[in-house]
Amino acid sequence: MDTNTANMTLLTDFYELTMANGYFESGVAENIAYFDLFFRNIPDGGGFAIAAGLEQAVEYLETLKFTEDDIAFLKGRGIFKDAFLDYLRNFKFTCDVWAIPEGTPVFPGEPLVTVRGPMAQAQFVETMLLLIINHQSLIATKANRIVRAAAGRGVMEFGTRRAHGASAAIYGARAAFIGGCIGTACAITGREYPGIPAIGTMAHSWVQMFDSEYEAFRRYAEIYPDNCVLLVDTYNVVKSGIPNAVRVFNELKPKKTGIRLDSGDVTYLSKQARKMLDDAGFPDCIIVVSNSLDEYIIRDVILQGARIDMFGVGERLITSKSDPVFGGVYKLSAIETDDGRLIPKMKISENVEKITNPGFKKVYRLFSKKTNKVVADIIALDHENIPDDENFVIFDPAFTWKRKKLSDFYAKDLRVPIFDKGKRVYDNPSIGEIQAYCKAQVDTLWEESLRFENPTVYYVDLSTELWNLRTDLIHRYQKDFE
Amino acid sequence: MDTNTANMTLLTDFYELTMANGYFESGVAENIAYFDLFFRNIPDGGGFAIAAGLEQAVEYLETLKFTEDDIAFLKGRGIFKDAFLDYLRNFKFTCDVWAIPEGTPVFPGEPLVTVRGPMAQAQFVETMLLLIINHQSLIATKANRIVRAAAGRGVMEFGTRRAHGASAAIYGARAAFIGGCIGTACAITGREYPGIPAIGTMAHSWVQMFDSEYEAFRRYAEIYPDNCVLLVDTYNVVKSGIPNAVRVFNELKPKKTGIRLDSGDVTYLSKQARKMLDDAGFPDCIIVVSNSLDEYIIRDVILQGARIDMFGVGERLITSKSDPVFGGVYKLSAIETDDGRLIPKMKISENVEKITNPGFKKVYRLFSKKTNKVVADIIALDHENIPDDENFVIFDPAFTWKRKKLSDFYAKDLRVPIFDKGKRVYDNPSIGEIQAYCKAQVDTLWEESLRFENPTVYYVDLSTELWNLRTDLIHRYQKDFE
Repeated sequence: MDTNTANMTLLTDFYELTMANGYFESGVAENIAYFDLFFRNIPDGGGFAIAAGLEQAVEYLETLKFTEDDIAFLKGRGIFKDAFLDYLRNFKFTCDVWAIPEGTPVFPGEPLVTVRGPMAQAQFVETMLLLIINHQSLIATKANRIVRAAAGRGVMEFGTRRAHGASAAIYGARAAFIGGCIGTACAITGREYPGIPAIGTMAHSWVQMFDSEYEAFRRYAEIYPDNCVLLVDTYNVVKSGIPNAVRVFNELKPKKTGIRLDSGDVTYLSKQARKMLDDAGFPDCIIVVSNSLDEYIIRDVILQGARIDMFGVGERLITSKSDPVFGGVYKLSAIETDDGRLIPKMKISENVEKITNPGFKKVYRLFSKKTNKVVADIIALDHENIPDDENFVIFDPAFTWKRKKLSDFYAKDLRVPIFDKGKRVYDNPSIGEIQAYCKAQVDTLWEESLRFENPTVYYVDLSTELWNLRTDLIHRYQKDFE
Repeated sequence: MDTNTANMTLLTDFYELTMANGYFESGVAENIAYFDLFFRNIPDGGGFAIAAGLEQAVEYLETLKFTEDDIAFLKGRGIFKDAFLDYLRNFKFTCDVWAIPEGTPVFPGEPLVTVRGPMAQAQFVETMLLLIINHQSLIATKANRIVRAAAGRGVMEFGTRRAHGASAAIYGARAAFIGGCIGTACAITGREYPGIPAIGTMAHSWVQMFDSEYEAFRRYAEIYPDNCVLLVDTYNVVKSGIPNAVRVFNELKPKKTGIRLDSGDVTYLSKQARKMLDDAGFPDCIIVVSNSLDEYIIRDVILQGARIDMFGVGERLITSKSDPVFGGVYKLSAIETDDGRLIPKMKISENVEKITNPGFKKVYRLFSKKTNKVVADIIALDHENIPDDENFVIFDPAFTWKRKKLSDFYAKDLRVPIFDKGKRVYDNPSIGEIQAYCKAQVDTLWEESLRFENPTVYYVDLSTELWNLRTDLIHRYQKDFE
């Protein structure tokens, strides 16, 4: 189950190995480097993303180890010398790591994870950190959109069979729970994360195995009298499914009752079903709907008056179908000289949006003292403090004349230490705590950030010192190529 | 690495367990049922899909086993009796399985996998079979599109960091190779599948770690004199990257040389690069391009005369970004009575395209004796044979007046036995064999099926006997709800 059980150390882009070897051969493997993991665009054009995956990233870093199989494979490539293979044999992760906790709403450019340590190590962990954080942040972000669209109705994660492989199913269900889903159909996720309810009832095949729909429903109700959710669309919802369900509910009186619709016009059918169930004396019977749902369809069917109590969302959640890439990147931000001086580094690119922020940084989130709602985020250098005073001025890093004087706020450092010289100093919260934290933090956002279309762009400003450093480096670079 | 190492038995929708228990409690767990795994739509509106994932599906079925941890988790749910938990404890897969081999071009409605066996077992394996086959078929299909767009130029799989978790990266790279990629950046896939080259060179951070781009290139060429591909866009491709690369190639004369472009206008830059490299005396230096590519962009840059020798394709391949869901389903097609009589089953649905094909089936592919190109596929019942004679008439199952008389063809049964009463009777081909088979089979398709836009819909017809059976069952169903 754990990524480490299966030895995932070589789950990495091969170039991490050629570079690690290159640093080793060049005698700089132990020189200190800083890397930031951040993203540039919010999936689906949304107003914010939800950070997720830190727990699995921590597991990965804590158990990183090259096995003899790994070494043999690398030796077979014929490009690595024995000294480097010995270095890998004795590899031990000794970096410092900071991160923004799971469940936090995050914005483009903010370092979600910062790694400081020996160059060869800090470089090597790039691929797997990106893989884990990109995947879970993608699904948590999508789930949060879908959950918000459901406006208080429960959303179940139903996508296992359409996930991109086993980890996508297991950790996708975990991330969906962080984003606000009330549970999952994925049994193994329920075993691994006891806080996540894993539930399920029947497929169409159950109904077809028996001689009649009535018999199939009756058998199910006999075996599961506590919670009896019947799939009513195998033959004909209105003429057969609901009448048979009502008959069985009357005959066997299950404690909790429900029906599920998995095809057809679910808005129309849910209204019909509600009326038939109410008329039959089952006003508490819940109506569950699945079938290619996402946040847009859910918003739509609710607007049209569908009578749905719970949504089962599958492929469009577990793959984030409308935008299946969370584009996190991992970029060098500084190196240290032998005497410990910090040399900020930045990536200049012909694609302007690919220019990075230099230096060892942290993120402050400013909240209004009056409303406890967010005001803005500030990316600052490590040694800076944000004064809680009345005259703090923030400005837009792209349009610096756009300035705003802030007062009556408090600042929260979003960055938390995770590893100290390779030793874990962070206890992962429970999955329930992460979900609750996520909900509370999303509640601090402006309504204008919650929109699906054209959300207001949230202020993520640079501190004056960071902005000056960045500008200075760009100018120096420009001079080189004039 | 193997899915079984990590015990993936509970990687299943919970309803497979409630149903298995239901069959067990109803005394029908050992009754024989038939299930087909098939898909309804080709991703990206393409002309065909590539079947993939069978090897991992076989591994899964061969090692299926409930551990005491699994049993304890299920017991804790309070809905399963001890007799059923004992049944799971002694669970052994004893079904028959047939499948279409990996790498085969396949079409909607064709059973990619058929499972026959005790109801509780045949039902239970649904989720994981779908998960594996859906994922790898999705990526193999996408990779094949991208490879065809590259028109003979190499395509490398570069998507690990954007994959949806570890399995998506590892098995996605495997599926991409089946679809025709020449290798992957994913090191662990290279370790697990020695036929798949895993390669990589450097990231921008390598270039930034050194005091100058020239120094970074020179160090790299010293360490890797056999194959020296330099990333030339960290600062400025034309003014810095290529001149520094040329200088290093001249100074150190690596055996093979190459440059990689990862940003900017790659069409323009590749033409500039080609000219500069040719002028400097490096006509054999290859130009590799990465940066959010897919089949459409590759086709476009080639049309515009880009001088690119190899493409590195990342996020849009590993997530199949433009259509990230392969909608395979697993449907009951028949049950056997106690005296071994087959009762065909089909799912009637209010969504017409969700109606299934009943009975125990196989797929024939007909090839022209003259050209060895495909003619049509026929889904037939198990006992039927396709006559190799001059007067075989096929017809469109939706528009039955569309008929075609076939002659001069031979028929190939695509179905291969995989398990016989739970015993594996199939040897997985090597990954290289699968890739070669895929290429050869795609070459048998009509050109009109290979188009990205509006491909000709390939004939997948039903045998007369299957068509009659299906029509008969629909009529019987209609009478029930008149």
